[in-house]
Amino acid sequence: MADQYARTPDGEQPSRPGPLRWDEPPEGPVVVLLDQRRLPAEEAELVCTDVPALVEAIRSLAVRGAPVLGIAGAYGVALAAARGYDVAEAASLLEGARPTAVNLGYGVRRAAEAYKSAVVKGADVRQAAAAVLAEARRLHREDAEASERMARHGLALLDELLPGGSHRILTHCNTGRLISGGEGTAFAVALAAHRVGRLRHLWVDETRPLLQGARLTAYEAARNGMAHTLLTDNAAGSLFAAGEVDAVLIGADRIAADGSVANKVGSYPLAVLARYHHVPFIVVAPTTTVDPATRDGASIEVEQRSGREVTELSAPLAPATVTGVTAMPVPRAPEAASGVPAALVAPVGTRAYNPAFDVTPPELVTAVVTEEGVVSPVTGAGIAELCARSRQVTIS
Amino acid sequence: MADQYARTPDGEQPSRPGPLRWDEPPEGPVVVLLDQRRLPAEEAELVCTDVPALVEAIRSLAVRGAPVLGIAGAYGVALAAARGYDVAEAASLLEGARPTAVNLGYGVRRAAEAYKSAVVKGADVRQAAAAVLAEARRLHREDAEASERMARHGLALLDELLPGGSHRILTHCNTGRLISGGEGTAFAVALAAHRVGRLRHLWVDETRPLLQGARLTAYEAARNGMAHTLLTDNAAGSLFAAGEVDAVLIGADRIAADGSVANKVGSYPLAVLARYHHVPFIVVAPTTTVDPATRDGASIEVEQRSGREVTELSAPLAPATVTGVTAMPVPRAPEAASGVPAALVAPVGTRAYNPAFDVTPPELVTAVVTEEGVVSPVTGAGIAELCARSRQVTIS
Repeated sequence: MADQYARTPDGEQPSRPGPLRWDEPPEGPVVVLLDQRRLPAEEAELVCTDVPALVEAIRSLAVRGAPVLGIAGAYGVALAAARGYDVAEAASLLEGARPTAVNLGYGVRRAAEAYKSAVVKGADVRQAAAAVLAEARRLHREDAEASERMARHGLALLDELLPGGSHRILTHCNTGRLISGGEGTAFAVALAAHRVGRLRHLWVDETRPLLQGARLTAYEAARNGMAHTLLTDNAAGSLFAAGEVDAVLIGADRIAADGSVANKVGSYPLAVLARYHHVPFIVVAPTTTVDPATRDGASIEVEQRSGREVTELSAPLAPATVTGVTAMPVPRAPEAASGVPAALVAPVGTRAYNPAFDVTPPELVTAVVTEEGVVSPVTGAGIAELCARSRQVTIS
Repeated sequence: MADQYARTPDGEQPSRPGPLRWDEPPEGPVVVLLDQRRLPAEEAELVCTDVPALVEAIRSLAVRGAPVLGIAGAYGVALAAARGYDVAEAASLLEGARPTAVNLGYGVRRAAEAYKSAVVKGADVRQAAAAVLAEARRLHREDAEASERMARHGLALLDELLPGGSHRILTHCNTGRLISGGEGTAFAVALAAHRVGRLRHLWVDETRPLLQGARLTAYEAARNGMAHTLLTDNAAGSLFAAGEVDAVLIGADRIAADGSVANKVGSYPLAVLARYHHVPFIVVAPTTTVDPATRDGASIEVEQRSGREVTELSAPLAPATVTGVTAMPVPRAPEAASGVPAALVAPVGTRAYNPAFDVTPPELVTAVVTEEGVVSPVTGAGIAELCARSRQVTIS
């Protein structure tokens, strides 16, 4: 069940809630998510007490973003183990929740392996559950560290590519603290530049259909005091044409063995625009996003989502204060969790094409930045070398 | 005043309302607009009894689209003349309502010239007003004819470029009956292909921020029984990559003397994508859209619109019937005209970049289709030749 909502309690970092945490209230262990569907209108937590609830939260994007999905998947397995559910079944459910996101499968399998390994070594149920939780926590920590290292490598790359030191960065979707155990991927690089005074401007694509840029990246940029401007995805062309973009920084949901990058739909058009305007197009992702089993871009399965995400506006909204008209009350109650108000923006019955991701071929990617370093030019060999360097636990 | 709303009466073509008409009820002459801000939720008419009301309707996009703006501008001058207002002042107000749309200025100036010419010839106020109205009606008719001829030329061009005869067309914004005295520009070409059984599919960009594709083009495609699918603007890249687009057809708001095309923001990224994928990028517009006084793309003034169009969702919406939740009641009453409900989709205070148009250089345009024929490759000389051929009245 995942129908318990609570306002984010005033904690250690009340102004910067993380995307998820493990908690152990008296009623038993839970995975607590910051419900990203409700941002920026409110910071509400979604408490998942079982795996189906977490799977639904992943599917409905209450938690989303490549690295954090791996962490969520691992905690999901830990939850199943701690509550005495069938761990293999839980792992299978979790892994299938989002087909393109390779990190999800990685985190789930790594946690499931830890469970199996503990059992093989003679652990009892409680000990095995503790082993899985420890593994999930390790992954969480590793991801936070990876985030720091990506930011460092990415900033060095920016400084090398753009010696002027006053970077105007265009980003797409949301790749910050909300998607990571740390400060994110692409966004973390922009934030690192901001902290050393070398970010001149962050251009934020709104990222239709679910507006993660408008809702989440603008929210994270504002919280960090970064100079930023929102734009519709299709206005990026005008910025490139006007010479207002020095580099594009995006994340990745899956990187194939040849360096092809699956990322939020709209990334590929930016790569083409960047190439046309001789602007670096940089992908920032941990090595866990690389899937050596996916040979090339054509082999990447792209998740097709419901056309209703396009024909209806069901993104969480705050009433506009400027016009003084309360249009869409923010859902507050448990019953609203699966029934976020929606409004049609196209005629009834309109069919929509809604791929969640697109695939950018390696020849359009200037560099892939990982926690292990940078690959540029992007080749299968370069990607393989970085992955080999990775200290991450390798699992099949 | 423009606060009289009426349901579209059952008229000659109840199923296909036009974008505007001149009417002469007992209270005096009026310009009646189909309020496009309310589509597809409802077909409501907006009755403009004076020029400031019409200017506001143009600014707020109750009526929009290059050719019809010219007609609306001409009727606006006729309205001023018929009601005894200052015609020169009215013309100046109307012309300034949308700076990029060259047709608006064309229609206004042509009607104002007719007035002046009549006065010079000794016409009294009534006669001069009649002369302006006659000129506006002539422009309206000419535009309908131009639309037919563009459709014919465009279809011939498609058949020449794509001999297979089963065209998959991608279009952006809205360029059909709603923007024209006839069946439109780019959309009219797709419709002509559909009528002869050569349109395989129409891909409809939703066209953020105001969703003219989702609201208006999907509506026109459905009304005409055309096979169509809606997509977010940023999903077009995936369609190109998958080889699902045979040609791009768009309209234009201004064509400079060198063949640079200003059109709805998002057109330029499509041109770059089309070039990268070797797909024809075709602009369809009447010769009235050419502005010989605008030398090149850099000289085109691009209208910057309020960032609230991006940060708030204020497009007219119908409640989504699927989820059963009535989220955003459709405004029905006069008082809602300038206060369409809006909802924030970004944090309060987020700044947005919102150019209404972008500019595509001639080298990325495969062909410009006008009522006088086709220019391809697109050169200043070719554009000038077509304009010289135009039977349109030339005015300065």
